[in-house]
Amino acid sequence: MLVLREQEKRVDPEKLLSFVKQVFMRLGVPEDDAGVTADVLVQADLRGIESHGVARISRYVNRIQRNQIEAKPKIRVLAETPSTLLIDGGNGLGQVVAVYAMRRCIEKANASGACFASVRNSNHFGIAGYYSMMALKSNMIGISMTNAWRLVTPTYGRKAMFGTNPISIAVPAKNEPPFVLDMATSVVPIGKIEVYERRGEKVPPAWGADKGGIPTTNPSAIRNGGFLMPLGGTAENRGYKGYGLAIMVDILSGVLSGAAYGPFVGAPDSEKPCNIGHFFGAIRIDAFQPEADFRSTMDQLITVLKEAPKATGETRIYVAGEKEFEMERKSRAEGIPLHSKVYANLRDLGRELQVPLEIDVDVSSAEPN
Amino acid sequence: MLVLREQEKRVDPEKLLSFVKQVFMRLGVPEDDAGVTADVLVQADLRGIESHGVARISRYVNRIQRNQIEAKPKIRVLAETPSTLLIDGGNGLGQVVAVYAMRRCIEKANASGACFASVRNSNHFGIAGYYSMMALKSNMIGISMTNAWRLVTPTYGRKAMFGTNPISIAVPAKNEPPFVLDMATSVVPIGKIEVYERRGEKVPPAWGADKGGIPTTNPSAIRNGGFLMPLGGTAENRGYKGYGLAIMVDILSGVLSGAAYGPFVGAPDSEKPCNIGHFFGAIRIDAFQPEADFRSTMDQLITVLKEAPKATGETRIYVAGEKEFEMERKSRAEGIPLHSKVYANLRDLGRELQVPLEIDVDVSSAEPN
Repeated sequence: MLVLREQEKRVDPEKLLSFVKQVFMRLGVPEDDAGVTADVLVQADLRGIESHGVARISRYVNRIQRNQIEAKPKIRVLAETPSTLLIDGGNGLGQVVAVYAMRRCIEKANASGACFASVRNSNHFGIAGYYSMMALKSNMIGISMTNAWRLVTPTYGRKAMFGTNPISIAVPAKNEPPFVLDMATSVVPIGKIEVYERRGEKVPPAWGADKGGIPTTNPSAIRNGGFLMPLGGTAENRGYKGYGLAIMVDILSGVLSGAAYGPFVGAPDSEKPCNIGHFFGAIRIDAFQPEADFRSTMDQLITVLKEAPKATGETRIYVAGEKEFEMERKSRAEGIPLHSKVYANLRDLGRELQVPLEIDVDVSSAEPN
Repeated sequence: MLVLREQEKRVDPEKLLSFVKQVFMRLGVPEDDAGVTADVLVQADLRGIESHGVARISRYVNRIQRNQIEAKPKIRVLAETPSTLLIDGGNGLGQVVAVYAMRRCIEKANASGACFASVRNSNHFGIAGYYSMMALKSNMIGISMTNAWRLVTPTYGRKAMFGTNPISIAVPAKNEPPFVLDMATSVVPIGKIEVYERRGEKVPPAWGADKGGIPTTNPSAIRNGGFLMPLGGTAENRGYKGYGLAIMVDILSGVLSGAAYGPFVGAPDSEKPCNIGHFFGAIRIDAFQPEADFRSTMDQLITVLKEAPKATGETRIYVAGEKEFEMERKSRAEGIPLHSKVYANLRDLGRELQVPLEIDVDVSSAEPN
């Protein structure tokens, strides 16, 4: 049974998908591309990653309306070898560009064993895990990264010089859900800081720093002139490793592709194209092991981790992606819980673009609260 | 001027290399392989990563003497595609196996754009950064990972289930030193905990946990029945991201190759072969960008990071690998500072194997302390 929080509405994933798709079509995005973009956004909500779901839709819509994102981009392969691709995203929606790039990666990996794509001239692509998971159906390991607008300070710095630059890898198993790591290389995303600020609560130490670069537990000091800290937090706790991983992502996504990188990536409100860069990879499992053997071993690895002795007071050990798959199952069965503010935004957007918002879960078939 | 701490001896890198090479040759390791192994170990000391340098030599020597590592391994390619390699290390020295695998990776990447190798039946290979840096001379990006003996607990657990599983990536620049990330996926290695224990000092919170899986600042509680924490530390600070990265390394190195993985990797004192797994990659830069352009952009990225405003009280921002290159320059000019205990161990080993220890820096040419 789904217990809704007071400010939540429960919506039907399929109807939400259809609504979002129609919104993008109204803006001149071709039907297939609108479907892809809607699917990536709704998938984020299904998996419980609300910060990257339909709550973000206005940002994309605004940029298309202002001609800062191309509704009908010309996506081109600029260079290729048997196992590499350099792609220009034509300033299209990040989701459309990323799905194109990952598909091409998988095709080429099929022929040559593995393939990597570096992509320039793209935009915010939503959840990195969507693209790494595309490889699963082809019995491959999928990899996905992107750079992003600067929010994070390097260790010992006091200026945001790079983004939350996420890394995702997806690996198929047999009976267990796939292993899906999808992580920002900062400790937390900026949305988490905002949540604490709204609630008037302190954040844990080392999530962020104030304008002097000094770690603070005051969310307002982080949001106003301060910065997010890279994974690890302070230098003492090896925050420079998170900083190093973030720069690795920027090199593979930005420098290698010729996109913007580090502090030069366009902000969400930038007049000019963001020129975001992505990096994708696909590795054929049967180039190394018989697929069935590999999947069985993955199940064994996952099981041995989950069955390990628990820390005092804890009852469960998770494997990357597990919580998200559970959330997806629940949301598919019971509807996606949307914050009432997000719901209201969608309704306003629907009115503006003349797309009726009919997304509520059929209450007659739902469990009582 | 090098100021030696009281318990340090200063040794000549070339002479140390020659000594270590002769030690391995005395054990039946072929001359080229002995040279490779010595070079990896001395490189660690040159770069200031003492925990992975000649201080470790006895572990390798003992395992060869007990026939737990093959002095003359039969290294074989078991499967390949244009951009993948599956390699059996024949239970050879990890350094010998890793250099072979990375060389083959680079050769194949030359032809196909990129290549990845997963390796089984190997042993501890020293510093991961040695192998990723091999790609630099060929104008490629190099990647190197390995699994390792279990020392780290999963988030919410109280049992060591995987190793410090390092990740390294090396990227060439133009005038700046290359970007070389070489990081354990735990907060710190076990050697750091030992240092604090010897000094009778507390460790910072979230480096390790006690036998109940509860974070502790007591180094003895971590060493006796406790565990290292994955990068990030506690769940609150996103230690599960470090845990996820460590399992990614285990999948690519262990599961994909058919090596041991997670808690099944052999311990340094195991009677049986360790069956450690590695993962390597090489990506041709000119498959994406003209080499000169790429190198210039890397210089710009590195410069913009180093020149960013510093946090209050700080004077310098580092880029991954920078400290190690500085240390190497210094050690090449002034000699490698070796702890007197490590020096004494080498002397004893030399006596046992009849290799004279003539490694001291010529004092007449050195600066006075």
